[in-house]
Amino acid sequence: MEVTARAPGKIILAGEHAVVHGYTAVASSIDLYTVFSIRLRSEDDDTVKLTLNDIGLDFSWSVRRIKEVLSHLGSPFSSTPTSCSLETIKSLATLVDEQSFPETKIGLASGVYAFLWLYTSILGFKPATVTVSSELPVGAGLGSSAAYCVSLSAALLALSDSVKLDVSQKGWSTFNETEAELVNKWAFEGEKIIHGRPSGVDNSVSTFGNVIKFKSGVMTRVNSNMPLRMLITNTKVGRDTKALVANVSARKSRHPDAMCSVLNAIEAISDEWSTIIQSHAVDDLYLSANEEKLGELMEMNQGLLLSMGVSHASIENVLQTSMKYKLASKLTGAGGGGCVLTLLPTHISGEVIDKLVEELGSFGFQSFTAGIGGKGVQISFDHSS
Amino acid sequence: MEVTARAPGKIILAGEHAVVHGYTAVASSIDLYTVFSIRLRSEDDDTVKLTLNDIGLDFSWSVRRIKEVLSHLGSPFSSTPTSCSLETIKSLATLVDEQSFPETKIGLASGVYAFLWLYTSILGFKPATVTVSSELPVGAGLGSSAAYCVSLSAALLALSDSVKLDVSQKGWSTFNETEAELVNKWAFEGEKIIHGRPSGVDNSVSTFGNVIKFKSGVMTRVNSNMPLRMLITNTKVGRDTKALVANVSARKSRHPDAMCSVLNAIEAISDEWSTIIQSHAVDDLYLSANEEKLGELMEMNQGLLLSMGVSHASIENVLQTSMKYKLASKLTGAGGGGCVLTLLPTHISGEVIDKLVEELGSFGFQSFTAGIGGKGVQISFDHSS
Repeated sequence: MEVTARAPGKIILAGEHAVVHGYTAVASSIDLYTVFSIRLRSEDDDTVKLTLNDIGLDFSWSVRRIKEVLSHLGSPFSSTPTSCSLETIKSLATLVDEQSFPETKIGLASGVYAFLWLYTSILGFKPATVTVSSELPVGAGLGSSAAYCVSLSAALLALSDSVKLDVSQKGWSTFNETEAELVNKWAFEGEKIIHGRPSGVDNSVSTFGNVIKFKSGVMTRVNSNMPLRMLITNTKVGRDTKALVANVSARKSRHPDAMCSVLNAIEAISDEWSTIIQSHAVDDLYLSANEEKLGELMEMNQGLLLSMGVSHASIENVLQTSMKYKLASKLTGAGGGGCVLTLLPTHISGEVIDKLVEELGSFGFQSFTAGIGGKGVQISFDHSS
Repeated sequence: MEVTARAPGKIILAGEHAVVHGYTAVASSIDLYTVFSIRLRSEDDDTVKLTLNDIGLDFSWSVRRIKEVLSHLGSPFSSTPTSCSLETIKSLATLVDEQSFPETKIGLASGVYAFLWLYTSILGFKPATVTVSSELPVGAGLGSSAAYCVSLSAALLALSDSVKLDVSQKGWSTFNETEAELVNKWAFEGEKIIHGRPSGVDNSVSTFGNVIKFKSGVMTRVNSNMPLRMLITNTKVGRDTKALVANVSARKSRHPDAMCSVLNAIEAISDEWSTIIQSHAVDDLYLSANEEKLGELMEMNQGLLLSMGVSHASIENVLQTSMKYKLASKLTGAGGGGCVLTLLPTHISGEVIDKLVEELGSFGFQSFTAGIGGKGVQISFDHSS
């Protein structure tokens, strides 16, 4: 039997940067997924094989060797999400080093540490074949690492004793609330290995899907009742999130009054976002009025992000291009490059989208459409193998 | 003797649109001038000749004809600034129509009405040769009509009994406070003929120069102690100021909380502007720190204007271009086209400015540098003719 879990990426709809200063932000799942498949091998087949499809990397450990390094920890303990100690990370690094990790992809090594930690903690020392592939670009602020950790945790837990799923069910199924919470907690432990101090927002959105409002560390789930599509444009310009966050803080201390009002404006925009997407559209007219409002909120939010100094020439380029098509856009995430959202109203023609995507492509940007606020992590079982 | 008056144009440094909602804006003079020259002719030479150099128009009225139409008003009354009644405007239109005004330039006819009103009200019915030329583009939000009215009023008053100037002085001289106030009041009467309901800010800046803070109809003069230069880029995109103002109000009623914070942020920026430009630079380091702050304030203000919805693709184009040179820009005036300011730090090389101007020119924009916060209206006498 093969178990497959898919977990969505996320975008920040409103409030990035403001959230660092204690103001509200709103994040949402997007229907682009990272997919983990796990097939257990027979006990006498002593191998754990991991294939990272998108980056073309393969790993193969003997279960005996993994045991040597980690069995003193007493794995598995699937019902008790546990942090990986610094000392254990060193042991994991040894296991990865033995597989001669290519120098040029060394930034991705922490993802493999997270794999080994979650795998052994949840499943113990079982031989298996594991593959992962993703529709999410890495390092673009779309929560690819969270989707990686969530889908991995979900697939592992589905094979553990901590979760009871109906394995005979066909197609994608979801976890109940308690199980999803467990998936989320394990994913968060994985995120800590990859990111050091993650906020927990990305893995929560990836686990529970839909829309989440967060402020001062408190997350509130928001039920979106509005069908929404965005064009996500990856400028492919890398950015230094820490430096961007520090610059905003410096600007805030130089211009405290103005920046405080800017942050208040963003808070109001986040609040309005969550109110609007919770409303049920009574008719088409109501829907397009709300779409127009959301477009305005995006334009306003982008202006405020510009005034915080986190825009970038590449982002302005996307804005200007989408403006020609009378479409509202805003950066999403840290800014300084990264991704830009463009609201696609329901009445927009595919032709217009194609033209826009083509024009954006001529600058070297990559654009893809995504549905907003869909389901979180899902699981399916394949008995054919 | 020929008397020549020159009056500067203006820019809005911060707070455009916000000022409509009762928040502070800051305006400044720029060292681009409109120049009126008046030479009285002998009493038996029955002609008033007006040459508008920049638009290539000439008018020539007989004093007898002007008297026929206007003498019942009891002109001149140079010390009593008086509004032109609607009935009198109709009479002025008759005088202009008799000169066969070209259809294509009919929008400029009100400037000729203002000329006739100010001329006869201040000087009465004297024959003269009058020429005007300007460095200010018309209808670009740089206060060209105010500079026209101020320089005209100043030249006329210099020839009247209401103002006592030392006509033997060489070069440019200024009016004393009371005289300047009289110039300003007459100029405002001219502005009313051209604009209907002017705010009075443009003519005040043109008359008194320097920097003026204004809020809810109250103007406060600010002493700028900082040398400042801007690149002013005319996008040449015409805009509908009334529609832009109405759109901001509509957005404010749709998103009251967010927009209120946006306006508060702009208020803080206007206040910071006037504080910074009043400070005396103790050394170069202090000066460039302040320049950097002003650049940030411009970037912030532009972001806030974007969030009010008054930017335009052409403006974004200028922003993006100047961003490449790491220079801060903001729209000035109504937005939706019009002019964009780019702060030129003191240390910037002429080469960089040339390159930027050339690049902006390739989009069809016209850029020129201007000193900020210089003197208001000035007068000079030429005895050679």
